[in-house]
Amino acid sequence: MTARINVNEKVLKENDRIAAEIRQQLSEHGILSLNLVSSPGSGKTSLLERTFRELSNRLTMAGIAGDVQTENDARRLEAAGARLVRPIVTGGACHLDARMVQQAMTGLDLSSCDVLFVENVGNLVCPSSYDLGEDMKVVLISTTEGDDKPLKYPAMFRRSSVMVINKVDLMGLSDFDLERVKKNARQINGDLEIFEVSCRQGTGLQDWYAWLTKTAATKKRR
Amino acid sequence: MTARINVNEKVLKENDRIAAEIRQQLSEHGILSLNLVSSPGSGKTSLLERTFRELSNRLTMAGIAGDVQTENDARRLEAAGARLVRPIVTGGACHLDARMVQQAMTGLDLSSCDVLFVENVGNLVCPSSYDLGEDMKVVLISTTEGDDKPLKYPAMFRRSSVMVINKVDLMGLSDFDLERVKKNARQINGDLEIFEVSCRQGTGLQDWYAWLTKTAATKKRR
Repeated sequence: MTARINVNEKVLKENDRIAAEIRQQLSEHGILSLNLVSSPGSGKTSLLERTFRELSNRLTMAGIAGDVQTENDARRLEAAGARLVRPIVTGGACHLDARMVQQAMTGLDLSSCDVLFVENVGNLVCPSSYDLGEDMKVVLISTTEGDDKPLKYPAMFRRSSVMVINKVDLMGLSDFDLERVKKNARQINGDLEIFEVSCRQGTGLQDWYAWLTKTAATKKRR
Repeated sequence: MTARINVNEKVLKENDRIAAEIRQQLSEHGILSLNLVSSPGSGKTSLLERTFRELSNRLTMAGIAGDVQTENDARRLEAAGARLVRPIVTGGACHLDARMVQQAMTGLDLSSCDVLFVENVGNLVCPSSYDLGEDMKVVLISTTEGDDKPLKYPAMFRRSSVMVINKVDLMGLSDFDLERVKKNARQINGDLEIFEVSCRQGTGLQDWYAWLTKTAATKKRR
């Protein structure tokens, strides 16, 4: 077990080195980078589809969409009008790492970009350990998953800056309690910025768009 | 990367050795062992709660409930009347391994047991690689996650023998298509036994109970 931990530490150190390169490159262009993480099916792609569709007149956005298999998510983003999109197929790996992101970035012209979204593999555990050079992690949780998830998967919520609660239109059909999930999440991380949305119905997205626009502008000015 | 793979191979080999011990021990007692895997919040605990509550008069069942943090799932099973229950808190690990299960088993009197359920960490990727000495993996997918998941996380569906589609009461509130998810799953694994249930409303559970009772009896006779 000791050997395994040491090797993993080495892998993580190499990952951090590449992540720092990515962070440096994005900062030079004033590009805000968000690493979207969640369980499978929480709505990462749905959130990005709507964001690309409804905010492209105000922000130039790029997307890197990771999956274990298929390029479906990247295709969905392209169908939503996103022009700067690259897929990553991990071929089995349970998370994106910085090297994969750096390689995907070479296929994107980021010179006039405001925001880079990196959509991680659907997994509420492993992606929390890998820095992808992002400014922040954005963790999504959908109301159908249950309000106990922040307590059961604390590392992801601790390392995220933003929590988007999706599928609020489906509340009332389960025991999910909005106040309880926020209480559970803030118990893990008191600094979380929280949005309540329905990507299907559009509820709450204006707040997300306002935050995104403001945060991208702040990054640009730095 | 080569070093990492070699170390992982060693870890997996040691895991397989312990899994074989577990399999041997359970087979000597004629105990059917099922390894339940899914995304977070698909309903593994809900399925087990109802199964313990409604089938305990016909089968003696034990449960080992794994989570990254909290013993909530084990407590939920105990509240559902399960007497043979042990929690595993992985403390960060994204999957159960055979050693954790073997240790948890020492706390359970399995002598008169018919079925052992091992509820894995909610993760549709990593648990697919770890043999826990089970007879079969049972993968759950809920209708709110989307019908593309078998294609995006193929290893889990390939290595499972049973697929339980949960939350069928929430169909119609999303784009989830029951025929499409079954087609996608069978494209990955043509041998999957499929059940369509709502753990909340009880729909379809009789078929699951009948299969479980029959499969446990077959194991007992072997």
